[in-house]
Amino acid sequence: MEQAYSVERSRTIQTKLVLPPDTNQLKTILGGKVLSHIDEIAALAAMKHCNNVVVTASIDSVDFLSSATVGDALSLEASVTSTGRTPMEVFVKVYSTDLLLDKKTLTTEAFLTMVAVDQNGKPISVPKIIPHSNEEKRLFETAPARKEHRKNRAMIR
Amino acid sequence: MEQAYSVERSRTIQTKLVLPPDTNQLKTILGGKVLSHIDEIAALAAMKHCNNVVVTASIDSVDFLSSATVGDALSLEASVTSTGRTPMEVFVKVYSTDLLLDKKTLTTEAFLTMVAVDQNGKPISVPKIIPHSNEEKRLFETAPARKEHRKNRAMIR
Amino acid sequence: MEQAYSVERSRTIQTKLVLPPDTNQLKTILGGKVLSHIDEIAALAAMKHCNNVVVTASIDSVDFLSSATVGDALSLEASVTSTGRTPMEVFVKVYSTDLLLDKKTLTTEAFLTMVAVDQNGKPISVPKIIPHSNEEKRLFETAPARKEHRKNRAMIR
Amino acid sequence: MEQAYSVERSRTIQTKLVLPPDTNQLKTILGGKVLSHIDEIAALAAMKHCNNVVVTASIDSVDFLSSATVGDALSLEASVTSTGRTPMEVFVKVYSTDLLLDKKTLTTEAFLTMVAVDQNGKPISVPKIIPHSNEEKRLFETAPARKEHRKNRAMIR
Amino acid sequence: MEQAYSVERSRTIQTKLVLPPDTNQLKTILGGKVLSHIDEIAALAAMKHCNNVVVTASIDSVDFLSSATVGDALSLEASVTSTGRTPMEVFVKVYSTDLLLDKKTLTTEAFLTMVAVDQNGKPISVPKIIPHSNEEKRLFETAPARKEHRKNRAMIR
Amino acid sequence: MEQAYSVERSRTIQTKLVLPPDTNQLKTILGGKVLSHIDEIAALAAMKHCNNVVVTASIDSVDFLSSATVGDALSLEASVTSTGRTPMEVFVKVYSTDLLLDKKTLTTEAFLTMVAVDQNGKPISVPKIIPHSNEEKRLFETAPARKEHRKNRAMIR
Ligand SMILES: CC(C)(COP(=O)(O)OP(=O)(O)OC[C@H]1O[C@@H](n2cnc3c(N)ncnc32)[C@H](O)[C@@H]1OP(=O)(O)O)[C@@H](O)C(=O)NCCC(=O)NCCS
Ligand SMILES: CC(C)(COP(=O)(O)OP(=O)(O)OC[C@H]1O[C@@H](n2cnc3c(N)ncnc32)[C@H](O)[C@@H]1OP(=O)(O)O)[C@@H](O)C(=O)NCCC(=O)NCCS
Ligand SMILES: CC(C)(COP(=O)(O)OP(=O)(O)OC[C@H]1O[C@@H](n2cnc3c(N)ncnc32)[C@H](O)[C@@H]1OP(=O)(O)O)[C@@H](O)C(=O)NCCC(=O)NCCS
Ligand SMILES: CC(C)(COP(=O)(O)OP(=O)(O)OC[C@H]1O[C@@H](n2cnc3c(N)ncnc32)[C@H](O)[C@@H]1OP(=O)(O)O)[C@@H](O)C(=O)NCCC(=O)NCCS
Repeated sequence: MEQAYSVERSRTIQTKLVLPPDTNQLKTILGGKVLSHIDEIAALAAMKHCNNVVVTASIDSVDFLSSATVGDALSLEASVTSTGRTPMEVFVKVYSTDLLLDKKTLTTEAFLTMVAVDQNGKPISVPKIIPHSNEEKRLFETAPARKEHRKNRAMIR
Repeated sequence: MEQAYSVERSRTIQTKLVLPPDTNQLKTILGGKVLSHIDEIAALAAMKHCNNVVVTASIDSVDFLSSATVGDALSLEASVTSTGRTPMEVFVKVYSTDLLLDKKTLTTEAFLTMVAVDQNGKPISVPKIIPHSNEEKRLFETAPARKEHRKNRAMIR
Repeated sequence: MEQAYSVERSRTIQTKLVLPPDTNQLKTILGGKVLSHIDEIAALAAMKHCNNVVVTASIDSVDFLSSATVGDALSLEASVTSTGRTPMEVFVKVYSTDLLLDKKTLTTEAFLTMVAVDQNGKPISVPKIIPHSNEEKRLFETAPARKEHRKNRAMIR
Repeated sequence: MEQAYSVERSRTIQTKLVLPPDTNQLKTILGGKVLSHIDEIAALAAMKHCNNVVVTASIDSVDFLSSATVGDALSLEASVTSTGRTPMEVFVKVYSTDLLLDKKTLTTEAFLTMVAVDQNGKPISVPKIIPHSNEEKRLFETAPARKEHRKNRAMIR
Repeated sequence: MEQAYSVERSRTIQTKLVLPPDTNQLKTILGGKVLSHIDEIAALAAMKHCNNVVVTASIDSVDFLSSATVGDALSLEASVTSTGRTPMEVFVKVYSTDLLLDKKTLTTEAFLTMVAVDQNGKPISVPKIIPHSNEEKRLFETAPARKEHRKNRAMIR
Repeated sequence: MEQAYSVERSRTIQTKLVLPPDTNQLKTILGGKVLSHIDEIAALAAMKHCNNVVVTASIDSVDFLSSATVGDALSLEASVTSTGRTPMEVFVKVYSTDLLLDKKTLTTEAFLTMVAVDQNGKPISVPKIIPHSNEEKRLFETAPARKEHRKNRAMIR
């Protein structure tokens, strides 16, 4: 298929309330919880783009810049930034909002690679992506450098 | 406090992927799962409006118009439709999207009443709400009728 | 089928211990948790009555009269109050008991409508219900009024 | 305290719907799921008897006589069968009901020992128990033999 | 099949971090949580030995010697101690480690019986087990006594 | 503190059974599930090394090489590979074993950075690490290159 869709079409938003079971003994949210939310929303963004089942091929980076605590709202935003033949790179931003102070902080940034697969789990091709906003264009243009960077990491083990 | 905020300010969006553990033996989503999502997003919308802790006072109606199945995306949308001194009426719409066919269906509609409380669980007053769009205005104007309707149900037990 | 069963036959009881993960930052139980329990026990009562798979058609009212806290026992009681051709109205009462003081409080009351469905999710007819106790009879006789009330709410949106 | 209560006062009932996430690849319920339900209801029965916080001191036997599958109702019944100074022996029976065939089977039987503890987790004394029905009396009279049996097991490791 | 494998081959290890949702109002871990971990690791050890699906036939004893609290590491160790035609006896030890003090305590000891079953849940035969270490030999030799002990308990109800 | 510990001392092992609720519509395990296990075991390895509370600072790479399916055993292995003043780099390997065929496959490899923090979440220093085996030495020596690599990724957004 030679289809192409806008980045906007894949944009997915999620808002979660941080509750006691999501937290550690410091009462801050567990990395593992944030990671499950990130993987879920990245899958949703990729499925919206390719209208197909996807699997997570790799997590390319997750930076936990600050934490979140019980009672905060966690809001995640994901969209497809670039595509290969079958993989899609997805960028996820996580903000936490102290709802009492109405103060919003960037908590986490992540890049993941999702791959579209058929019913037997074999990779299948995906539509191209078309960036419009400046941020979308910047992320689209820097994608090859990140792919390069991804390949290099294999050599430094 | 004599503050007032727009309905828009309270709008909250959530997207979830329907997974096997969310479903029953018919592979359709469990009512109880949808209800937890509805309660969580209604609390978030109300907390955004009043910048305070809230508790659920009542579920005024939930209509399950159609179902969702494994692999669908469930998207919820909530906003405060009207306020009393301490309570907020929240309207929640749930859509399910078949990501392979890119087909979106209205699954559930719900009205809830959330109350702002202090650290001892005692109700405290909330800002007024200002509707702008036509749907916001309609829901704001029909709120007293729903409140009346809510009171009547106590008599028919 | 022209069968009919007693309300008693559908009565279902559940007792749960309120634990930290069930609670919010006020250490009181989350509305969403109570709602999942209510949906589960309503489904059980309806399945007991019709010996069939059921789905939740609507939540007609849930009133959270008081809360419950960590260490309390939550006891739910559900039974079918009236039936249509394929739907069943279920009434659920939730009590919380402070086990240290041995003090029991009515926490929540709810009415739900469950519908019996076949393997394809198509509604199928259910047995009639026969009330015996005074409360059973009162709820049976007031059911048409609640049905009327339910229909009206559609008009006030 | 020299109080004494009936076995009936401690009786606790729970009904659960078996759902996909509770089952293994044979679609039958996981032993671990049944065990959590058994531990929860045993704690509830013991707390009802002593109006105190309790901890599980030991599981003395659990026999999984038959299984349960998705869509079945699991009903548990627990009561205190005998007491020591601070421990309470609790007997739990688990039935599974095929709701479509309305067929009820004894699935599991278990004996546990719960101990009442203060805020520091130190054991504290509990009220005596008074059996009334024949089964209650039989279980009360055979309790010392089970305690003996329990002690012996320590020697055969 | 007349195969036989070493106890070592079945040995399975698991380490878990105790988090708030695993605990009760004393902030100590719930018996039910420990029991699910024990059932899961016992199933894994038995499946490793017989390379087959297994079900839990019985819990023969669980002694909760001490507790664990939030932030502790819970480490479980399981291995098959003896076999019948189709059942396997599994011994599980649970240690809790206070990671700040680097202090390790034996928390729980348990014996379970797992049975290998075919796709219809019918018992099928398992390989024999060969003990090597002294503890393995002791547990192997005392197994018949525990089986005897297990049968006797049926008589004292 | 000028302490130093062996890599071995931090080694942590975990074995999990893949169950239906862990999987997607292809019946293969969800990336998010594997990620939570990876974050938990990485935290445990880091806490064992520094005997302190830790938080996840970043996920530096996760490669999902192959999948796992219901009934497989998932075994994770983690250890600290290098340290900074307050951060620890942790390497996690995940294998899945088909228990019926007794076939083990490398499923996932991940590098994470955990930081030791005090009760206020402020970073505090950690002991040095001493590699012994060849793999431990290789990973120790390539750590600076990975740190370099980590810093560079910030520039390609
Ligand atoms: C990680 C964290 C504690 C760092 O705190 P900080 O105030 O930035 O302190 P510093 O900048 O001095 O960082 C401390 C060390 O961590 C390292 N570090 C910080 N961020 C890092 C990252 N994203 N990746 C790798 N290393 C990182 C720094 O290099 C520094 O190393 P050094 O001690 O050798 O100099 C802080 O960013 C934080 O709390 N993040 C959220 C962690 C969390 O809650 N995660 C779970 C879910 S969000
Ligand atoms: C365990 C189970 C498979 C036994 O099947 P069965 O039809 O009773 O077959 P058998 O009576 O021949 O028992 C098979 C073997 O298991 C042993 N066994 C059965 N029940 C046992 C028990 N409660 N404790 C210990 N061993 C037991 C028997 O001694 C027999 O041993 P052998 O092969 O050396 O002769 C069956 O009872 C069952 O499916 N139980 C439910 C298991 C389950 O689903 N557990 C999880 C949650 S309920
Ligand atoms: C159970 C527990 C409170 C007993 O405390 P202790 O300091 O050993 O006190 P004691 O030895 O006096 O035991 C108190 C009573 O419990 C009984 N008891 C202790 N361990 C028991 C066991 N494994 N099985 C049955 N009864 C037991 C004793 O016989 C004694 O009875 P008595 O009061 O009639 O004399 C303690 O072992 C404990 O906290 N265990 C962990 C409980 C827990 O957290 N479980 C959940 C997950 S680990
Ligand atoms: C991801 C997966 C489908 C790739 O399949 P494969 O047989 O390796 O097929 P390929 O090698 O052709 O890879 C397909 C595409 O994915 C890309 N890809 C594969 N692994 C990748 C990785 N770790 N990171 C980034 N991209 C990757 C390849 O570059 C290729 O791109 P292209 O189509 O533009 O050429 C396969 O490795 C897999 O199933 N992994 C497990 C996924 C999973 O289940 N994750 C959840 C928990 S384990």
